[in-house]
Amino acid sequence: MISTRAGPPELLALDWGTTSLRAFLMRDGKIIDTRHSSHGIQHLPEPGTAGFELAFAQIATDWLQKWPQLPVVASGMVGSAQGWREAPYVRCPANAQTLAAHSVCVPSGLGPDVLIAPGVLFDQADQIPDVMRGEEIQIAGALLQKPQWAARSCIVLPGTHSKWVQIESGKIVSFATYLTGELFAVLRKHSILGRLMPVSPEDKAEPDAAAFELGLATARDSGPGDFPHQIFATRTLGLTGRLPHASLADYLSGLLIGHELVSGLAHATKQDDIPLILTGDAALCRRYALSLSYLGQPDCTVLENTAPAGLWDLARAAGLMS
Amino acid sequence: MISTRAGPPELLALDWGTTSLRAFLMRDGKIIDTRHSSHGIQHLPEPGTAGFELAFAQIATDWLQKWPQLPVVASGMVGSAQGWREAPYVRCPANAQTLAAHSVCVPSGLGPDVLIAPGVLFDQADQIPDVMRGEEIQIAGALLQKPQWAARSCIVLPGTHSKWVQIESGKIVSFATYLTGELFAVLRKHSILGRLMPVSPEDKAEPDAAAFELGLATARDSGPGDFPHQIFATRTLGLTGRLPHASLADYLSGLLIGHELVSGLAHATKQDDIPLILTGDAALCRRYALSLSYLGQPDCTVLENTAPAGLWDLARAAGLMS
Repeated sequence: MISTRAGPPELLALDWGTTSLRAFLMRDGKIIDTRHSSHGIQHLPEPGTAGFELAFAQIATDWLQKWPQLPVVASGMVGSAQGWREAPYVRCPANAQTLAAHSVCVPSGLGPDVLIAPGVLFDQADQIPDVMRGEEIQIAGALLQKPQWAARSCIVLPGTHSKWVQIESGKIVSFATYLTGELFAVLRKHSILGRLMPVSPEDKAEPDAAAFELGLATARDSGPGDFPHQIFATRTLGLTGRLPHASLADYLSGLLIGHELVSGLAHATKQDDIPLILTGDAALCRRYALSLSYLGQPDCTVLENTAPAGLWDLARAAGLMS
Repeated sequence: MISTRAGPPELLALDWGTTSLRAFLMRDGKIIDTRHSSHGIQHLPEPGTAGFELAFAQIATDWLQKWPQLPVVASGMVGSAQGWREAPYVRCPANAQTLAAHSVCVPSGLGPDVLIAPGVLFDQADQIPDVMRGEEIQIAGALLQKPQWAARSCIVLPGTHSKWVQIESGKIVSFATYLTGELFAVLRKHSILGRLMPVSPEDKAEPDAAAFELGLATARDSGPGDFPHQIFATRTLGLTGRLPHASLADYLSGLLIGHELVSGLAHATKQDDIPLILTGDAALCRRYALSLSYLGQPDCTVLENTAPAGLWDLARAAGLMS
């Protein structure tokens, strides 16, 4: 139910990724209604532009009939080369103003245009280049929560392609992607490491915390290059009976997250003790926070979904609201 | 053609792996005839024991009709739980005598039994357990070539599951597996890292040596845990146009081999400057030798296939030859 007693909505914000579409009706920076659809950009009802228009119409028609002048903003893979309209990457350093200045417009088919945010590119000589798309909006939302984070902080977004993002003077100055989640999925499904794991894991079974911590400890004690050896333990700990087969996925998960954290912390805290902020999937953020604590880094802040706040900030920076 | 003018053969030696079967007719430690079949243990003409007997008969019947008393030895996956008969792992430290003492016999169906070598297990508390099967025979063969290697050396067997093996007093005392080859195949085929690589790479095209070296250099400069980040460059170096798409596989290969070498060298040369020996696939060994040289380790020895010599050593240790 929409609660619009305080007045009409001021923004329709879309978080549009690969596998899902989330729509937020907002007023004064706050969510007054939320809708969800499975029409991620790889799961559209039709191919091409018509598919985007149809997916948008299905989620937003009645809202726009009621408030036809509502500004609409979007972030995520909807702005990729495979999206509704490509919003090319902007270079670091970047903040909401940079993103707004490089957003692109596409006709929604329902009246208002949709303003689509660009992704961000990190590309400096002698360093590994990197890209993000969607996370930059979550970051803009996170930075609204505490002014001192904007001065200097490290924001971590765990996931299939985890991001470690360095913030200085309110801007994304550099970042690094870790393929942690994808490595876990690919190794479990397609490599010898998944062979001993039960085919039908009991999803409701408690994870084996000791096996997960063994993975973390192995990562903590690793030297450069040790990764391709340490993952083989996912098999040999099972072969030798040191871990039950049902716990091998927990070991692998701990090892992968551990490697990401060891490397991410080393780069993030190179300069000084900067605030560490986790945002994204809540269960995964909790797992990361526990792992950080295990590795001696108990001080981090876990945020709820910051994408709506970031989209609000983008719309404000773009001058879409009076 | 068999050259048996110097006398009849003394041994039929089988190198029987997952994808192929190689048979060597030997005398006085030397090969006098070689045969090859595609009947690896996962490609038998029939399932089960009958399949092994048939594959053996197809490659060896005329030899055994001529020399019915010929002793037969075998190594590799033929001794695994999925093999002809399981030869359970023996623990480190292990040499040819240990292997001979724990070999198992299976009737060949053609007269003589087949003596199958066990694999080797490294299993010490607080260290990652490890297993090998087949490489222990290649190692026995390598150690015959130079007596001082037996005193102390490190033998590297590059491949899908590379092995770094520490030798002391003629025995395998410890070893570590690196999933280098499997990681390359799985990441290229099943992860986002393969997306930009050409679908039909021109196999005859020269590899991009500069891209390969960029991968090596990235691995050389890595800190603990950096691997899941550095592999993402396989995508971003293509996205940003820093590398042509056809060179991305070379970068990934250099990165993976580099990680293995950085870690392997750190553990192998912890004590002192021990001899480093490469054995296995000739092209891959050359690639490893060049990479070692790039990483400042030019002194290594590359050996041809040492499995036949190792099988000879096993048969001698088992007392199969007069």
